[in-house]
Amino acid sequence: MTTGERTTDAPSEAQLTGLGDMDAAEFRAAAHAAVDRMADYLESVASRPVLPPIEPGSLRGLFPVAAPEAPETLDAILADYDRLIEPNATHWQHPGFMAYFASSAASAGILGEMLVAALNQNPMLWRTSPIGTELEIVVVDWLRRGLGLPDGFEGLLTDTASTSTLIALAAAREAAGTDAAAAGLPAREDLPALRVYASAEAHSSVEKACMTLGLGRASLVRIPVNDRFELVPGALDAAIAEDRAAGRLPVAIVATVGTTSSTSVDPVAAIAGTAEREGIWLHVDAAYAGAVALLPERRSHFEGWERADSIVVNPHKWMFTPVDASLLLTRRLDQLAAAFSLHPEYLRTLDHTTPVRDTTDFTPQLGRRMRALKLWIELRWFGLDGLRRRIRHHIELAQELADAVDADPDWERLAPAPFSTVCLRWRPARLAGTEQQVAVAAALDRANGAIMDAVNRSGDVFLSHTRLDGRFTIRVSIGNLRTERRHVDRAWELLRAAAWAAEADTDLP
Amino acid sequence: MTTGERTTDAPSEAQLTGLGDMDAAEFRAAAHAAVDRMADYLESVASRPVLPPIEPGSLRGLFPVAAPEAPETLDAILADYDRLIEPNATHWQHPGFMAYFASSAASAGILGEMLVAALNQNPMLWRTSPIGTELEIVVVDWLRRGLGLPDGFEGLLTDTASTSTLIALAAAREAAGTDAAAAGLPAREDLPALRVYASAEAHSSVEKACMTLGLGRASLVRIPVNDRFELVPGALDAAIAEDRAAGRLPVAIVATVGTTSSTSVDPVAAIAGTAEREGIWLHVDAAYAGAVALLPERRSHFEGWERADSIVVNPHKWMFTPVDASLLLTRRLDQLAAAFSLHPEYLRTLDHTTPVRDTTDFTPQLGRRMRALKLWIELRWFGLDGLRRRIRHHIELAQELADAVDADPDWERLAPAPFSTVCLRWRPARLAGTEQQVAVAAALDRANGAIMDAVNRSGDVFLSHTRLDGRFTIRVSIGNLRTERRHVDRAWELLRAAAWAAEADTDLP
Repeated sequence: MTTGERTTDAPSEAQLTGLGDMDAAEFRAAAHAAVDRMADYLESVASRPVLPPIEPGSLRGLFPVAAPEAPETLDAILADYDRLIEPNATHWQHPGFMAYFASSAASAGILGEMLVAALNQNPMLWRTSPIGTELEIVVVDWLRRGLGLPDGFEGLLTDTASTSTLIALAAAREAAGTDAAAAGLPAREDLPALRVYASAEAHSSVEKACMTLGLGRASLVRIPVNDRFELVPGALDAAIAEDRAAGRLPVAIVATVGTTSSTSVDPVAAIAGTAEREGIWLHVDAAYAGAVALLPERRSHFEGWERADSIVVNPHKWMFTPVDASLLLTRRLDQLAAAFSLHPEYLRTLDHTTPVRDTTDFTPQLGRRMRALKLWIELRWFGLDGLRRRIRHHIELAQELADAVDADPDWERLAPAPFSTVCLRWRPARLAGTEQQVAVAAALDRANGAIMDAVNRSGDVFLSHTRLDGRFTIRVSIGNLRTERRHVDRAWELLRAAAWAAEADTDLP
Repeated sequence: MTTGERTTDAPSEAQLTGLGDMDAAEFRAAAHAAVDRMADYLESVASRPVLPPIEPGSLRGLFPVAAPEAPETLDAILADYDRLIEPNATHWQHPGFMAYFASSAASAGILGEMLVAALNQNPMLWRTSPIGTELEIVVVDWLRRGLGLPDGFEGLLTDTASTSTLIALAAAREAAGTDAAAAGLPAREDLPALRVYASAEAHSSVEKACMTLGLGRASLVRIPVNDRFELVPGALDAAIAEDRAAGRLPVAIVATVGTTSSTSVDPVAAIAGTAEREGIWLHVDAAYAGAVALLPERRSHFEGWERADSIVVNPHKWMFTPVDASLLLTRRLDQLAAAFSLHPEYLRTLDHTTPVRDTTDFTPQLGRRMRALKLWIELRWFGLDGLRRRIRHHIELAQELADAVDADPDWERLAPAPFSTVCLRWRPARLAGTEQQVAVAAALDRANGAIMDAVNRSGDVFLSHTRLDGRFTIRVSIGNLRTERRHVDRAWELLRAAAWAAEADTDLP
């Protein structure tokens, strides 16, 4: 179907001599043609290889070295789009994308991105986008309620969990009394070393935030985890006590619900107890797993997060919102303002006679996209029930895979699977009990790397890996809107077939 | 015209019982309906009031307090879009939007945003989006050449100039030898106070970056400007010498080409001389005016910027790219990596046998949108010649307005207008020579505030203000893709009419 397609074999007048935009008829035709491409893409994405079979550096040379001086026709541009862009994308929308954490865009969210592109809002100040500002407050509160969090949490939409966590830690830095935003960290000769606590399994975005904020990687204290990869509260308490004794200043604790490697769940309630007792900012990273809090029957994973100072949940992960959309909730918005608010004259508006929400007061950036619209459309199109049904299904698919792995003597799971991500590896039954031997351990790592690589080369499935307890671990992460049981079955089938081949190829004992 | 419109008076099966996405036919129909709204919007935006005539806080109550449990039809959602969203937007696409700096989205760029929303790329690693990664390199280089910058500059696309400047200053922090990313700023007892230099007229994003990076607002030394609002090089040299003598460590100098208040141009070549002599990182903020470097005949404004360590130019301002798109160019990409690169196991890929560009190595965020596609489409649709023609026209319109102001004895310009922004105020001829009197100065400020407010209430034009030499200054900033001579004429007509009214109302002597 090619509704609205139009043949254009020469640049338009608007292109050749115009001073403004494309004329409306040309845009209308081109946008309808784009919609057909988009719909065709979504219909056909499952039949493409998830990963394009190309090598790094192979694409750049396909494009001219300089932008054209003269305008080109939309037909030529869209033909190049078909030829050069789509085939060379990694298909995050593919139902076989089970790498990292899923980030798939629902059609309802895509509609939101389309409309926003035409509106081109910049809700940095209320005045620069009243609806962008207030719809964000509405949608953030819809999500807060949906996640079962109490009144008192408010917040904003940022681009990524990295930014949400950076904002939270910047606020924590102020709340700890460092006066960093104003005075700076090096200027205070009396300022002790600062410390941020997170588990050994916490995401790299915590470390990156420490780098960006001038705390440094050295400020991050990695607290040991138990054999389920969960932070050990006693170790946290001991680390804090040690730092206090040495005159260091605790700034924040980051607890994770759904770590990146294994989706383990830190004991948030116990950690919240520590944070409250010690007067330390608690930030909860639930970027991936937070969506599960939409399910009342699974809220036990989140127990205690309502006592956090800030929480990040990414709608662009398991809530099917197009990239980018990260939700930052906090009970201490005033501390975000302490970290980021600035009022140069050219940003003052005449609206400040009443309390006005200028969202830039809470962000390291001034300008920002309107991210609320896609969420507003999507939450209404799915309904909370519709989101819950899909998330429950993904958890069920993951449990089925976990059961299949557990039932196969040649495979093992390397971590609990509380949500929708299964950590596994091939370990033939005959090697059971010998895995600790250095040669066996190394051979198993190589074999599992080869297995994952073979699965990824199939084009049907894309998996990624991590290391758990030093072992090469294949992650199968379910949460793509378009993933069905057959795609998970296919992943498991490909894994076992690749293991069969690996058995023949490797130097296993 | 409503091609593709479809009546849906009940939720679809996919909504009621489905586990996946909207079915393809429903998406296709809804997306065509969305396109018609978008095209209608762009066709009609000039007839809307630029600023919606509403008060802060008036929108939130129009929406339910909670997300719906059950799905709603797209018809209902899109009807609410028409009723609640569009009328309450500040219309950045309106030809009468002459506030701040223009940020208008070309139709060609909107097509790019549409396609990207369906592809849902995340070019954080090469592997997670080969085309997102390599097209970004291509487009960044197209822009570099277009701007007349030499080989050796490379870079990336970020969300905003705030982020680009934050990245540049984080890199400068490393380049200055602070080891901040690793050790942190407070940990080094031998670390002196750090200093960043920018003119008194530099943008607040420089100050915000200092806050975020832990340098603090106190680290920013505001260098005086001359009567054209340009940084005084001698004052910069003196400030650096004073800081060196006091044992402080200079980290970066920020020179601005096109300041926010008056679009003044710092003497970049002289400043580059200082930076080179002193071994200090030079960052050039050309977020707004950088687009003018596309015009060879106007490159004198930019003389010396090729000696900078980093440069920011915002395509989402005067290059008509949809929000968000900021270009960060640097000759020292290795220092960006020193500030931001991290390699946890779960982000390692098997591609690292050849040199691979993983763009997250250069950013505070991990995930990122694919911003290259909209620029690639847009640069081809306009051609560099087409962009130049439009930018030249905007400069011409601004010069005409400046001439009209200069010719009117009751108005005065408060700054040179080297680009497309005119700083002006009403000052009736009879008061010439008395402006220094406190009562007159205050009355003129009030009158000009009232004039701007009256113009903004017209709905035809949106202007913003600043203060120059302490005086309330109205800014007329041209650069919206859809602005024509008649819109600038209308702004001038409205200003003069409002002054006529102000003369009767105010307590001017």
